Amino acid sequence: MNRTDDRPVTLVDEHAHAWSPQAARARFREGLTGPTAGVAAGRTQANLISVPQDWAYDMLLFCQRNPKPCPVLDVTDAGSWSTVLADDADLRTDLPRYRVWQDGRLVDEPTDVRGYWRDDLVTFLLGCSFTFEWALDRAGVPIRHVEQGRNVPMYVTDRQCRSAGRLHGPMVVSMRPVPPRHLDAAIRESSLLPAVHGGPVHCGDPSALGIEDLGRPDFGDPVDAEPDDIPVFWACGVTPQAAVMASRPPFALTHAPGQMFLTDARDEQYRVA
Amino acid sequence: MNRTDDRPVTLVDEHAHAWSPQAARARFREGLTGPTAGVAAGRTQANLISVPQDWAYDMLLFCQRNPKPCPVLDVTDAGSWSTVLADDADLRTDLPRYRVWQDGRLVDEPTDVRGYWRDDLVTFLLGCSFTFEWALDRAGVPIRHVEQGRNVPMYVTDRQCRSAGRLHGPMVVSMRPVPPRHLDAAIRESSLLPAVHGGPVHCGDPSALGIEDLGRPDFGDPVDAEPDDIPVFWACGVTPQAAVMASRPPFALTHAPGQMFLTDARDEQYRVA
Repeated sequence: MNRTDDRPVTLVDEHAHAWSPQAARARFREGLTGPTAGVAAGRTQANLISVPQDWAYDMLLFCQRNPKPCPVLDVTDAGSWSTVLADDADLRTDLPRYRVWQDGRLVDEPTDVRGYWRDDLVTFLLGCSFTFEWALDRAGVPIRHVEQGRNVPMYVTDRQCRSAGRLHGPMVVSMRPVPPRHLDAAIRESSLLPAVHGGPVHCGDPSALGIEDLGRPDFGDPVDAEPDDIPVFWACGVTPQAAVMASRPPFALTHAPGQMFLTDARDEQYRVA
Repeated sequence: MNRTDDRPVTLVDEHAHAWSPQAARARFREGLTGPTAGVAAGRTQANLISVPQDWAYDMLLFCQRNPKPCPVLDVTDAGSWSTVLADDADLRTDLPRYRVWQDGRLVDEPTDVRGYWRDDLVTFLLGCSFTFEWALDRAGVPIRHVEQGRNVPMYVTDRQCRSAGRLHGPMVVSMRPVPPRHLDAAIRESSLLPAVHGGPVHCGDPSALGIEDLGRPDFGDPVDAEPDDIPVFWACGVTPQAAVMASRPPFALTHAPGQMFLTDARDEQYRVA
């Protein structure tokens, strides 16, 4: 697997945190690309995966059986590019960048998938950890990759997901370096948002997840940690892409890692208490 | 719709709160019946619905689209009567009482469904509000129906669930009368357990949910409230049975309302923080 991009990325626009989700989608529809961490403060971002209807039950069951990496926010009817999460959105055009998969191989990374669309595609929108970054930020937890203008680093782990029908594969995690004095807040604030991955799956030693080198993420960018920072790992919505690679459905569309769908939903509505 | 039973019920056994889930399942397998509120303290109880494989995607999507009434804890492979939630359990025999549905009509209420089993049945186990009663109890909230030795009262509301394929129907709620000084704790404690219906859907006036008479529940038993008690309504796992009545799949099996499946899972593992 390769990183999304060889260059360190910068925020798509210095004012992007203040954009409305409608404005963000409009700009991405016009062709703007880049990671969406920090875009449209307080609005829920989502991972996307579309599979042929014949694979939809396996995918929905895979999500149910692996709710930490795959918390489902919405599932469309077959062929539909609309979602209840954003009335005016077009799921074929409104993400910064997509990935096109054939038989488990990445074959294209377009900014628009109207040319690949099929009437039998069922689209899954899954919670994204960018959502809880606002809660972490409000609680005073530094978000290193945002400070450094990079995409969050993501790693394929040695933990296998619970399989569902023909779908199987490893869990993918995102990592944020957290200063020890902020660890409690990071765990508490993310745990209160179970629909966007919830609390971390692991804190500390990366080798416990089979990760050899934090400096070489499988997706996204490496991030610089301060000396005392502890690496904290959250289940990641790129997990279905790892399942696509491992399970090789004939066709799938996904977002490009870190380049998410901006919904109209407010993060607060996913907070449990 | 009729109440489950015309008689006020009593706890299935005065020592049932101390039973292990294994012991509870063994007794129900031997033929003991009755509501399971208060049985096997701290162990997670589950609603059950089995549908033919042809209806499984609609049911799983119905659950995803209506997570408050239908929080999925496990889904079996077609034909299997095993669940990861209880290694030695047999889902065909281990509940106190079942309901058998044909074309949306209730046709039998046996204590064992081996004679009705089909190789194409997919079984859904959904979170149950009996789970958060222990958390409410620990927080000092009185549980009136347990104090009175009755089944919890359940009501069909005028709120329609979001439909999924061929499945549609109204939301069902359970009701507990809560003293005003305990309302905060009841809301907080249940909200921290989103996998078992989470926080209430409504507090106060029953007519806001289209409920005309709290004394005449659609399922379970009426419960006596103290003068200042406020009726608090939680989404209920009997909702799929209302969807079966409204949508008329050719065949379905469910638990009898209030007579749940006892899992080995501990309530604490569903607590988010």
